Amino acid sequence: MIYLDNAATTKPCREAAEAMLEAAEEFGNPSSLHGLGLRSEKLITAAKEKLAKKLGGDRKNIYFTSGGTEANNLALFGTAYAKQKLGRRIITSEIEHPSVLEAARKLEREGFDVVFADVDRDGRVNVGQIKEKLTEDTILVSIMHVNNETGVIQPVEEIAKAAHALSPKCAVHTDCVQSFGKIPVNINRLGVDMVSVSAHKIHGFKGCGALYVNNTRLTPVLYGGEQQNELRPGTENVGGILAFGAAAERCGCDAAQMRHKRSLMAELLKEKLDDIEINGSDEFNSGSVLNVSFPGIKAEILLHSLERHEIYLSTGSACSSHKPQPSHVLSAMGVTPRSIAGAVRISFSEFTTDEELITAAERIAEEVKTIRRYM
Amino acid sequence: MIYLDNAATTKPCREAAEAMLEAAEEFGNPSSLHGLGLRSEKLITAAKEKLAKKLGGDRKNIYFTSGGTEANNLALFGTAYAKQKLGRRIITSEIEHPSVLEAARKLEREGFDVVFADVDRDGRVNVGQIKEKLTEDTILVSIMHVNNETGVIQPVEEIAKAAHALSPKCAVHTDCVQSFGKIPVNINRLGVDMVSVSAHKIHGFKGCGALYVNNTRLTPVLYGGEQQNELRPGTENVGGILAFGAAAERCGCDAAQMRHKRSLMAELLKEKLDDIEINGSDEFNSGSVLNVSFPGIKAEILLHSLERHEIYLSTGSACSSHKPQPSHVLSAMGVTPRSIAGAVRISFSEFTTDEELITAAERIAEEVKTIRRYM
Repeated sequence: MIYLDNAATTKPCREAAEAMLEAAEEFGNPSSLHGLGLRSEKLITAAKEKLAKKLGGDRKNIYFTSGGTEANNLALFGTAYAKQKLGRRIITSEIEHPSVLEAARKLEREGFDVVFADVDRDGRVNVGQIKEKLTEDTILVSIMHVNNETGVIQPVEEIAKAAHALSPKCAVHTDCVQSFGKIPVNINRLGVDMVSVSAHKIHGFKGCGALYVNNTRLTPVLYGGEQQNELRPGTENVGGILAFGAAAERCGCDAAQMRHKRSLMAELLKEKLDDIEINGSDEFNSGSVLNVSFPGIKAEILLHSLERHEIYLSTGSACSSHKPQPSHVLSAMGVTPRSIAGAVRISFSEFTTDEELITAAERIAEEVKTIRRYM
Repeated sequence: MIYLDNAATTKPCREAAEAMLEAAEEFGNPSSLHGLGLRSEKLITAAKEKLAKKLGGDRKNIYFTSGGTEANNLALFGTAYAKQKLGRRIITSEIEHPSVLEAARKLEREGFDVVFADVDRDGRVNVGQIKEKLTEDTILVSIMHVNNETGVIQPVEEIAKAAHALSPKCAVHTDCVQSFGKIPVNINRLGVDMVSVSAHKIHGFKGCGALYVNNTRLTPVLYGGEQQNELRPGTENVGGILAFGAAAERCGCDAAQMRHKRSLMAELLKEKLDDIEINGSDEFNSGSVLNVSFPGIKAEILLHSLERHEIYLSTGSACSSHKPQPSHVLSAMGVTPRSIAGAVRISFSEFTTDEELITAAERIAEEVKTIRRYM
């Protein structure tokens, strides 16, 4: 099997699986006052420490959630409701993950003034437009760090700087679900107030994410017990959290290596096939995703023919795959419908080997040629 | 170690741990269109089937959440926002879990007309009061099945029948987090529209719960991708879900056995100690919890002295243990402050043995006598 759909999810690593099993033995409720509870609480603190270290932040600012979606929702709804008296403008982009986009649309329906910044042909958000739309009543800017369909790195630092310069009350959030563990993510260097991360994208388990909250006010999304400073109630997902900590501690974050994989795959495909299009900036790319169009073919057909050879990749993001519609990311970039129809996302993990890429590229090229012959 | 805090959390069983490890290998994103995704989706469907079977319901009605808290929040917020144009009254009780109480209080702050029914000395909600407050603009009744501090079974069937008879638009929800897996929970017999359950209370892992939704409209709490019929977005916690299914399939649900444990513990303590008070109905009890007061002692002191002998129990619920305040459940029942101060919750699992109970009862009696001597 050659798994090239690591932007959708990754295989839990050995360290994560071991941490999960540890939680099956250290099973105390972290809120219990007795020793078993205390031990669980300490293990959670240690996991926070590992994540904080990787993010260049303080473990006290980490709030665990059920995943990236909840972390993004907490950042958007939490900020909007906490700061609605200070202003009503929220700026985000057209290429965000659905968990940001749909939250923003809900806030828009509720009367918030939401700006969806557009992107250029390279898949980078329009910084000029964002700066133009940044008014004094802007309470939140949420721009993803790395796009999940193209791997394009967004100019988060520049946007954060502009937002904070104009309005001290404006919180800046960045969805780092696709960057964390793939390229360095440093809270201070990014200059943001909130960062979302997800365990299952870095070889942890599904069902666990976190929002890093640096000195900005949030209203909870969920209501209940007093866990996590009353910002996020519910018994903590101890196993998922320990596994997330273990995965974060282990993971390489070798940006050069990721970029090598992407370049290699792109080169191999270009060598073997005419008429292919790489979607999204090469210069500003995490290297974790290669989005490539084979115009004239239907990507679904290619995917299914590759599957017969146990090569797994995807068309767009997994979270909207059951309702096929043209990728909102590629559409926003101005990719033609024909090229969108023939676009696949090839996404790498640090465990992806050159040999796998060589085999996959050969097979992709063969299948594309076969499909083209019959279309 | 003798663990008697099973209402706070339980130890994951072997079957749950194995299912979790299976998910580390079967790691596809259930939303991915390729075979790996499909396999994960099928495993989730199988887990739903196991839960549905245990609940006497249909697997299509199961929505996985991050736990009992989110399931309860989804039932309350989801119903309130979906039905707010039909009516504004919501009826719940004073002894609900914080994830129901705090959600209800938030809805009250937003202008919903929330009734918190009181309870009698036995810890049973006041059905007469609920019936009286049931008006035609009641959109939701949420009454827990078994109380988490006393084990008292609530008259959910009777309440559901009354609510549905009066108003066809009224949805009835019951928090079954403390009953599921301990006493039979059957959707149809209960006659309710929604049921919340949690994995880590039945020897699954923390971080996974479900809301069973039977033919009633809900507005989502979280916004994002199209997972779970767009009612609950986010990549499913596959490991937690598979473990939940395995735990549900395995668990005994032997109500008589649970009641035996509670009776045995109560008898043993009564034999050895004068002046003890059992809080909550014996007749209507799941048997999974024995709430007992040793008036005149501080429960925290007893807990810590028992801990030295590796016997673990609790004062009230774990989720509010970090901010010590008198139990809202015992207060609502009219237990005196002195008896509340001396109340402990002893909670059993199907794995708790008679020998453990005998040893624990002896030790509890000795420690209570020692503490009384010094107070």
